[in-house]
Amino acid sequence: MVTPLLDNRTLDKIGLNRLIEHLIQGGVHGIFILGTTGEGTSLSYLLRKELIDLTCEMVGDRFPIMVGITDTAPEESIKLTTVAAAAGASAVVAAPPFYFGMSQSELFQYYWKLADQLPLPLFLYNMPSHTKINIAPETVKALSDHPNIFGLKDSSGNAVYFSSVLHMIKSNPSFTLMVGPEEMMASTILLGGHGGVNGGANMFPQLYVALYNAAVARDIELVLVLQEKVMDISQKIYSAGVSGSSYLQGLKTALSLLGICNDFIASPLVNFEAKEKEVLKSNLAQLP
Amino acid sequence: MVTPLLDNRTLDKIGLNRLIEHLIQGGVHGIFILGTTGEGTSLSYLLRKELIDLTCEMVGDRFPIMVGITDTAPEESIKLTTVAAAAGASAVVAAPPFYFGMSQSELFQYYWKLADQLPLPLFLYNMPSHTKINIAPETVKALSDHPNIFGLKDSSGNAVYFSSVLHMIKSNPSFTLMVGPEEMMASTILLGGHGGVNGGANMFPQLYVALYNAAVARDIELVLVLQEKVMDISQKIYSAGVSGSSYLQGLKTALSLLGICNDFIASPLVNFEAKEKEVLKSNLAQLP
Amino acid sequence: MVTPLLDNRTLDKIGLNRLIEHLIQGGVHGIFILGTTGEGTSLSYLLRKELIDLTCEMVGDRFPIMVGITDTAPEESIKLTTVAAAAGASAVVAAPPFYFGMSQSELFQYYWKLADQLPLPLFLYNMPSHTKINIAPETVKALSDHPNIFGLKDSSGNAVYFSSVLHMIKSNPSFTLMVGPEEMMASTILLGGHGGVNGGANMFPQLYVALYNAAVARDIELVLVLQEKVMDISQKIYSAGVSGSSYLQGLKTALSLLGICNDFIASPLVNFEAKEKEVLKSNLAQLP
Amino acid sequence: MVTPLLDNRTLDKIGLNRLIEHLIQGGVHGIFILGTTGEGTSLSYLLRKELIDLTCEMVGDRFPIMVGITDTAPEESIKLTTVAAAAGASAVVAAPPFYFGMSQSELFQYYWKLADQLPLPLFLYNMPSHTKINIAPETVKALSDHPNIFGLKDSSGNAVYFSSVLHMIKSNPSFTLMVGPEEMMASTILLGGHGGVNGGANMFPQLYVALYNAAVARDIELVLVLQEKVMDISQKIYSAGVSGSSYLQGLKTALSLLGICNDFIASPLVNFEAKEKEVLKSNLAQLP
Repeated sequence: MVTPLLDNRTLDKIGLNRLIEHLIQGGVHGIFILGTTGEGTSLSYLLRKELIDLTCEMVGDRFPIMVGITDTAPEESIKLTTVAAAAGASAVVAAPPFYFGMSQSELFQYYWKLADQLPLPLFLYNMPSHTKINIAPETVKALSDHPNIFGLKDSSGNAVYFSSVLHMIKSNPSFTLMVGPEEMMASTILLGGHGGVNGGANMFPQLYVALYNAAVARDIELVLVLQEKVMDISQKIYSAGVSGSSYLQGLKTALSLLGICNDFIASPLVNFEAKEKEVLKSNLAQLP
Repeated sequence: MVTPLLDNRTLDKIGLNRLIEHLIQGGVHGIFILGTTGEGTSLSYLLRKELIDLTCEMVGDRFPIMVGITDTAPEESIKLTTVAAAAGASAVVAAPPFYFGMSQSELFQYYWKLADQLPLPLFLYNMPSHTKINIAPETVKALSDHPNIFGLKDSSGNAVYFSSVLHMIKSNPSFTLMVGPEEMMASTILLGGHGGVNGGANMFPQLYVALYNAAVARDIELVLVLQEKVMDISQKIYSAGVSGSSYLQGLKTALSLLGICNDFIASPLVNFEAKEKEVLKSNLAQLP
Repeated sequence: MVTPLLDNRTLDKIGLNRLIEHLIQGGVHGIFILGTTGEGTSLSYLLRKELIDLTCEMVGDRFPIMVGITDTAPEESIKLTTVAAAAGASAVVAAPPFYFGMSQSELFQYYWKLADQLPLPLFLYNMPSHTKINIAPETVKALSDHPNIFGLKDSSGNAVYFSSVLHMIKSNPSFTLMVGPEEMMASTILLGGHGGVNGGANMFPQLYVALYNAAVARDIELVLVLQEKVMDISQKIYSAGVSGSSYLQGLKTALSLLGICNDFIASPLVNFEAKEKEVLKSNLAQLP
Repeated sequence: MVTPLLDNRTLDKIGLNRLIEHLIQGGVHGIFILGTTGEGTSLSYLLRKELIDLTCEMVGDRFPIMVGITDTAPEESIKLTTVAAAAGASAVVAAPPFYFGMSQSELFQYYWKLADQLPLPLFLYNMPSHTKINIAPETVKALSDHPNIFGLKDSSGNAVYFSSVLHMIKSNPSFTLMVGPEEMMASTILLGGHGGVNGGANMFPQLYVALYNAAVARDIELVLVLQEKVMDISQKIYSAGVSGSSYLQGLKTALSLLGICNDFIASPLVNFEAKEKEVLKSNLAQLP
């Protein structure tokens, strides 16, 4: 879930409520807040806490909420988990600490000790493009033995990696394996993956739920039809700009054009310029 | 196809013949020589020419032969293509030049001009881990307009990339899209890809052909069974060593243990040490 | 300056006081706390604030204190600067935000807006190995026009980069250019650089001050003698372990062996194991 | 030395002769052909042999000639060395093979075995931006024991790396350490390095020889004056374009404007466009 913002210090509360209702009506099975798409690392702790409280309050028990706690300081991750637990969230999600380079052994120790101290179950988050480190399949396998670690969200885009993890943890059916990139959700589900955590679902939740269902049902014909729509979104919305953050800029601009929430992007990233907004508007109109 | 060698200057001709017959009996639809698995860039030009001639002679017209011409010097790629054409090969395959960094525009110009001069059709080869550059989907799309460029082998492992290319060139049904990593062949075929160029087929061609057929037939149950075998091979054969070239070392050692060809690896890479060979032998015995 | 710790939540206050007095007696011209060597990003905000307050109190006006505010959330950098200003620090230091990838234009906007809002002068901090982005010489040049930005600490190790920045900002004599790596402090001063922010000065402040003075005086003979000692430290202390954090592990272990402060390293990094400590102890004894 | 070309298959022989005389009159102590600046990896073997023969013939015994033999196929490196030895070259230079990733142990074995087989002394060439691998200081140290390996050209730009190698091999005074980037030649000589292999010397050999002499004489005042000129060239000639090969494009365009040789750049790289040539022409006129 994106974080609707008015400026660097202020949530777009009306937009947040509209977005949550949009997602619920769209049939999604849960939400992940304060992830990469949620700009978690860009927000002050005060704002992160406010978002957790408000979201939990607005959602109630209508679906589970997962909260991103990725941080370079483990103590802050623990504090945020305490906030999330008090607010009623279901679980937390942590990518590796991303300032210092780490070995797989250091990474294992980090996650194991962190999971020991958290009052909520922990979901691993592989995001090498942003964290500079890949959680090796062997490390995922070893961490899956921890009673408080129950899954992995893989946003590497690497299908060989995902297949390796899937193969390694197949003896542990309670460990959940999801992918970030929506472009590969269907193919990974067909091969045994458990789902997707897809940014595009902010805009079109029904489409992604339908694609998920088609893949689970192994209805390849339908998968191909829906996959085309997903790829159209990927190329028309996420690639409308030239910056490395074109994905987030496109997504937030589209949400604003769709009347769902404000398009402000937290510093250090910046919004689309006027010209890019025009491109996006035109691209959005072309989506079937 | 691997290149069976006795030493840095000498082909293992008996092994080469045995390997080719093994592949033909295994039902593969064609072979790719002098690729990454074939150690093309490590061999002298004399040896590359010898391999092309011998292979074409041994295969005859039993299946098509594609020849790797990846080089930093375009003139050498052109000369090798002339050799391949004279010997009766069907097509050539080129990864980007890999010494100088290049922009997508420079890459486009390179491939376009190269294709103009080649006496055989050209297959693009995306291999960013070795060449330092990704052939962007937009560049593939633009190059697909060249009458002498007819396909792409993608060895990036990146499923988002592959889906993007697939989506972009769907209006050109004669452009062929294949993947290198066998771990993702089935999932890409299910989503519309056209096949795999898989190193493991050197050892067990029937398995990979069966997986291909199951994916084409959309028989997901069978795909899952065969995919497990493929993943077992990936983890037991390719990950038996600690070096970055463990894949090639494992593959060649296994081929030697299976009695197909010699396991010599051309310099600058080196063979498994005795201890690693023991691990591999034991792993190979565990394969079902 | 390293951050002396008893555990993840507790400062080693006695060690901190001993270290500060050691540095003052060693003749250093100022200190930089909460940098990379200070494990700033690994510490909770509570601990960072405590360290700022305590250090400012212990130092008084004996030398200037610079405080690291590197963060992915600009709001937290601003809050920490407010704490630093209230405690009496002289300036703050910020490396680029390091979660999202950024363009040079985004980076320029980030720094410019940040400097606008800070109650203390800002020192740029180039640390591409940890932040994934290089502050381009052109960006440094453009930022040097901001009245609240007064210098750059370059820890890239790249002498071509440093020379380029030096050349570009030579028309602005009030802009200060320092290097992080002590191995290149002398050579950069000889060519016009202004100093070093060297981790080794925690152990042997007099040596690094002497090297600085020799370079400023252009006494090459003395520079060569002292440079040898600095390189001995680099190879015997910082390379005693095998991990990527061997530098920090070696430095903190040496400080502990020298009786200055505790050697605890904050999670996510870990301390040397017993065997590595023995190597370091032996190496330390060999230093002249 | 750049390679003067008329097109991908033809040397600019008149330009080559003019360039060689220009370098001799400029006082350089030797030349390095077929390096990165010489586009060695882009040229056909036929052309490389022709260049070696012609250069050796034109130079005679007026200064030593070093020949780049960097290749992914060791056999080709050996063959080229035989050509160089027959033509009268003094030594050869090899960067690591750059297609397959390698470990330091594999790299050591590669160089050791290569040096065993070469009929000329071997100079190591560290060029991690192009080869994807750094020759670790420990590996240089180990290789310096080979009787046929006598030096290192470091083009990493990394001053910490260079200082580490310098420190490690100081017990072997016959091992020669030079840097590629001219921006750091003076500072490395001041600290004990032995010289530079500088692309800019193609244009202005006297300037770089003067800078070398000033650094050897420890005349810092003069070094600073000349270093400014070198940095002006770096920023006005090498950064006139936007491509990653702007350095080579700028250098060859300037040589053409100076009337020394043709500016053709071998494929896969491309020449400056007209607009960039105008920028360069104007920049060149501004050089003092």
